[in-house]
Amino acid sequence: MTKDFKPYYAVIFTSTQNKNIKGYDEMASKMEDLAKTQKGYLGMDSARNDVGITVSYWESLEAIKNWKQHTDHMLAQQKGRENWYSWYNVRICKVEREYEFNR
Amino acid sequence: MTKDFKPYYAVIFTSTQNKNIKGYDEMASKMEDLAKTQKGYLGMDSARNDVGITVSYWESLEAIKNWKQHTDHMLAQQKGRENWYSWYNVRICKVEREYEFNR
Repeated sequence: MTKDFKPYYAVIFTSTQNKNIKGYDEMASKMEDLAKTQKGYLGMDSARNDVGITVSYWESLEAIKNWKQHTDHMLAQQKGRENWYSWYNVRICKVEREYEFNR
Repeated sequence: MTKDFKPYYAVIFTSTQNKNIKGYDEMASKMEDLAKTQKGYLGMDSARNDVGITVSYWESLEAIKNWKQHTDHMLAQQKGRENWYSWYNVRICKVEREYEFNR
């Protein structure tokens, strides 16, 4: 943690999936590649067991809004609701502090 | 998303583990049970593949600080650094907006 820490934003996406998720992996990979090319994108962490958690990091709320409204991403979101997700939750968060441990 | 949404806080804990994590599962379960009894605790999501992501939700920064400094939790953190984690990152976030999809 440094004194000149500059706040940024995190989108916490938690979800549960249906049993049949045909086409999901391909789309998820495509969307991750596309997200990386967006203005203000900072990074992403993802893991799934019973619940899936994807956290993406962004420079600003505007960058998050632009990504949410990206045409290809909107189609992916629609497919997600129709085919893959039984439930999801999206939290828009301001990262206020951060610290790290390295062995 | 409702007009009377009340901001709360999320702690995003991302980590990578060592190969030998003897004792970890027991401690993680113990800490989850203990967290649930803390004042201001709202919930938790957790998943692990290559990277582990645990997000815990809290009513206030004070609740997060109290939990960080809880004696049993401090011992667990120390054990984590000594034995289980090769790296971790902690982000303290303010949840500003939230929306949900239910099939």
